[in-house]
Amino acid sequence: MRLRLVGLVFAACLVAPALAGAVMSEDEVAIQAIIDRQTDAWNRHDMDAFVADTTSDVDWINVVGMHWEGRETVRRAHAVLHKGIFAHSRMVRADKPELREIAPDVVVAVVQNRIEGAGLMPSGEPYPTNGNILTLVFVKKDAVWRIAHAHNTTIDRDAAQHDPAKSP
Amino acid sequence: MRLRLVGLVFAACLVAPALAGAVMSEDEVAIQAIIDRQTDAWNRHDMDAFVADTTSDVDWINVVGMHWEGRETVRRAHAVLHKGIFAHSRMVRADKPELREIAPDVVVAVVQNRIEGAGLMPSGEPYPTNGNILTLVFVKKDAVWRIAHAHNTTIDRDAAQHDPAKSP
Repeated sequence: MRLRLVGLVFAACLVAPALAGAVMSEDEVAIQAIIDRQTDAWNRHDMDAFVADTTSDVDWINVVGMHWEGRETVRRAHAVLHKGIFAHSRMVRADKPELREIAPDVVVAVVQNRIEGAGLMPSGEPYPTNGNILTLVFVKKDAVWRIAHAHNTTIDRDAAQHDPAKSP
Repeated sequence: MRLRLVGLVFAACLVAPALAGAVMSEDEVAIQAIIDRQTDAWNRHDMDAFVADTTSDVDWINVVGMHWEGRETVRRAHAVLHKGIFAHSRMVRADKPELREIAPDVVVAVVQNRIEGAGLMPSGEPYPTNGNILTLVFVKKDAVWRIAHAHNTTIDRDAAQHDPAKSP
């Protein structure tokens, strides 16, 4: 039994590099799959699917600082936006998310993406196509990973030229 | 021994309401104290103190989407900003942080604050005084709480008028 499990994990390690270009643990594969499903859900404008892998009490903070509490609120807010500004939008993921285990069964993912084809914002300005940087905090409970907290920020590419972390 | 511990916790519960206006657990008191110390450190422009309660591998994402990895990088980036745009700034906290335990020994805090007296941004525009909404992910290890991840976003007060979660 134990050997069979080891065999399965070993097989997973052989398969994962082909998918991702790097050896990934079972947990990384599961988290990556959720992020992929969420991107896909955005592009199908299916907001039930978009929130399917969140906890019921998920918090979501968007790029303009709106703070939505609970899965149903997060779903409803996104559903309204996908009938308006995001109705014809497409999420394009910029790179492989960075995953960091900060505690047992808690992983923080930092995801970069870009929204193409969005409508105008309430201010009348176009939605930024600079890209967003999104924090997703994943928690594993009863062997299932879910998003417990999300926080999103638009990347300011002009400001990035003056990153103080890169100052000499 | 056990009773003495219960006594201490009971005493803490008697003291905490006087400080915070609500019954707070020992963990909430500790986390609140870290948030207070960080506000104080910002206002004294002491960036060693500002990062003192972070983990060594903390990630910090700022309001323009810069992503700083590791305590020393976070300290250095803030130190550069506190010699420039934030040299004469003051952080004013808007309200009591919302704390949510998402896993054992993991708490997400959502903190609202406002930066007053900041200088101009590299674009030449003034730094927004609308306020920021900051996620701090706290992890307790060896009985000590530390910030493992931070993500900050400027609040757009105009956009807030059109919050889709409040749409009928």
